[in-house]
Amino acid sequence: MNVNKQVLLNKRPIGLPKKDTWAFVETKIQQPNKGEFLIKCEYISLDPAMRGWLNDSKSYIEPVQLQEVMRAGGVGKIIASNHDDFKEGEYVYGQTGVQQYVITNGSGFHKVDPALAPLPVYTGTLGMTGMTAYFGILEVGELQEGDTVLVSGAAGAVGSIVGQIAKIKNCKVVGIAGGPDKCNYLINELGFDGAIDYKNDDLNLKIKEYFPKGIDIYFDNVGGEILDAALGRLAMHARIVICGAISQYNTTSEVKGPSNYMALLVYRATMKGMLVFDFAKDYEKAAIQMSQWMLQGKLKSKEDIYEGIENFHETFLKLFSGKKLGKLVLKVNED
Amino acid sequence: MNVNKQVLLNKRPIGLPKKDTWAFVETKIQQPNKGEFLIKCEYISLDPAMRGWLNDSKSYIEPVQLQEVMRAGGVGKIIASNHDDFKEGEYVYGQTGVQQYVITNGSGFHKVDPALAPLPVYTGTLGMTGMTAYFGILEVGELQEGDTVLVSGAAGAVGSIVGQIAKIKNCKVVGIAGGPDKCNYLINELGFDGAIDYKNDDLNLKIKEYFPKGIDIYFDNVGGEILDAALGRLAMHARIVICGAISQYNTTSEVKGPSNYMALLVYRATMKGMLVFDFAKDYEKAAIQMSQWMLQGKLKSKEDIYEGIENFHETFLKLFSGKKLGKLVLKVNED
Repeated sequence: MNVNKQVLLNKRPIGLPKKDTWAFVETKIQQPNKGEFLIKCEYISLDPAMRGWLNDSKSYIEPVQLQEVMRAGGVGKIIASNHDDFKEGEYVYGQTGVQQYVITNGSGFHKVDPALAPLPVYTGTLGMTGMTAYFGILEVGELQEGDTVLVSGAAGAVGSIVGQIAKIKNCKVVGIAGGPDKCNYLINELGFDGAIDYKNDDLNLKIKEYFPKGIDIYFDNVGGEILDAALGRLAMHARIVICGAISQYNTTSEVKGPSNYMALLVYRATMKGMLVFDFAKDYEKAAIQMSQWMLQGKLKSKEDIYEGIENFHETFLKLFSGKKLGKLVLKVNED
Repeated sequence: MNVNKQVLLNKRPIGLPKKDTWAFVETKIQQPNKGEFLIKCEYISLDPAMRGWLNDSKSYIEPVQLQEVMRAGGVGKIIASNHDDFKEGEYVYGQTGVQQYVITNGSGFHKVDPALAPLPVYTGTLGMTGMTAYFGILEVGELQEGDTVLVSGAAGAVGSIVGQIAKIKNCKVVGIAGGPDKCNYLINELGFDGAIDYKNDDLNLKIKEYFPKGIDIYFDNVGGEILDAALGRLAMHARIVICGAISQYNTTSEVKGPSNYMALLVYRATMKGMLVFDFAKDYEKAAIQMSQWMLQGKLKSKEDIYEGIENFHETFLKLFSGKKLGKLVLKVNED
């Protein structure tokens, strides 16, 4: 077999991606030239941010071009190498794209050790997801011990780690998630102090109950009405970390801006946007800290793994349907 | 004559205040008790923030109660005193309320010198307006020499000072205002580098032209579509100072939140709310600096003065109709 199954961006979606957003193609696997190596991709990271890369508009990163392999982080094994620093048999993480094989000169790739953590963890807790959570809550949110912290998308990849880090730092942590199962998971598995089921609870009332003195840090992954509800209950000098806005990524009308933004004035609060790339120089330090917490049993890494590159479309949609727990990962090759 | 004409809050307005929002009453002037003094109010400060105090909702300050004298800053002369520190004939600034005479124990009042600056200036450039501009742009906005600065409500009380301070600090400054007269004023009188007439210009296009490399600081007095336009043209690590949202104060529907707020993430930008009261300990230092700039001719103070407490309602509405330049002041007593 020398076939490389790839997922290309076929058509820019309006709203939620459809089947014809993607083209599934097969190409022949090439051999690496001098200074290159060939990776057999194993696990691909699926993230809400990928939705933004499908739009043809200026953002923090170039849009994916039509008929280009869909951009994605992934972890895989080097199966052939013509590169001095990367050897056959080693495992690496980097921008593999949604495909089974990729040739690279190593730019943006780093080695990972499957003996220290299962490979999918390198797409999640020890990958960009974990880094986003770590720097988002500690650096951008300027977390202090004893802060009261509210996290949305709390059962998701980033949110679940944000909440756990805040617990490690002795904060009071409440998560917002959809449905009783996720809420139970937050409290019973991850040790959150409270959980709010936005599908069934009275959001504003619950936030008021959990935060009688207001919210010191709101970590936002969702935007929309939940962001407004959080703004309605800030403590003085609160920090709002804007990490994502998953409720708005597939909207076909105007994005809902936060109507309650004047709460920033009332509470002298700060709303700050973040991108994990800005913290690249400290990734290694953070990864060491995160793996220590994992070894100590203080930080749980949860991956929701699906199989088969053919199932990319359906799996990708799980990011927006709320039907997954933790980090969404797609296994794109047989072992 | 021993009559004190007063303006009371009669009825909470929905949308723009109407004539019956206010009650005009006359009471008898009392004499000050031990530890008190009597002020003859001369100039009352009219500010957009006063609109917020009319709503019966939690904010940074208690709402004005029904049948209470309308809250306002004002400057006046002490005409009788039973207080050790405040003497007859001295001039003071403080929360006088919208009335011709007030008795106080001096709490929140400070003396002003009519020989150093005309009395109305103490309600504006050397009062809360000037302090708001000074701390808003320098402290909250973290202004650096050479920054590119966009100010909305730029011909208004706060905006015109913000822009002039940024010019003093060698920044490129563009103001947004309504109509060609105000725009000419910004450029020809106040020395702004550019002006955008939001009523006639293509806002987004003009912002793009003036800020080819993006906006470092956006100082927002207005909210609404102008805030969104500014968010659409940020420079990396931009700061947005939320000082007011005059376009939204009288809305009878939901406040328009900034749809473009995800620009905070794209540009790793910070949106910060401010209230001048937080800087009280440094007012004196700032006032000295501001008066030096005025004496050096670097900072122009512009007051738009109307006369007669009977005209309070019509004058107050000028805050929202765009029909005034600089600081709006009402003279409530004859000399």
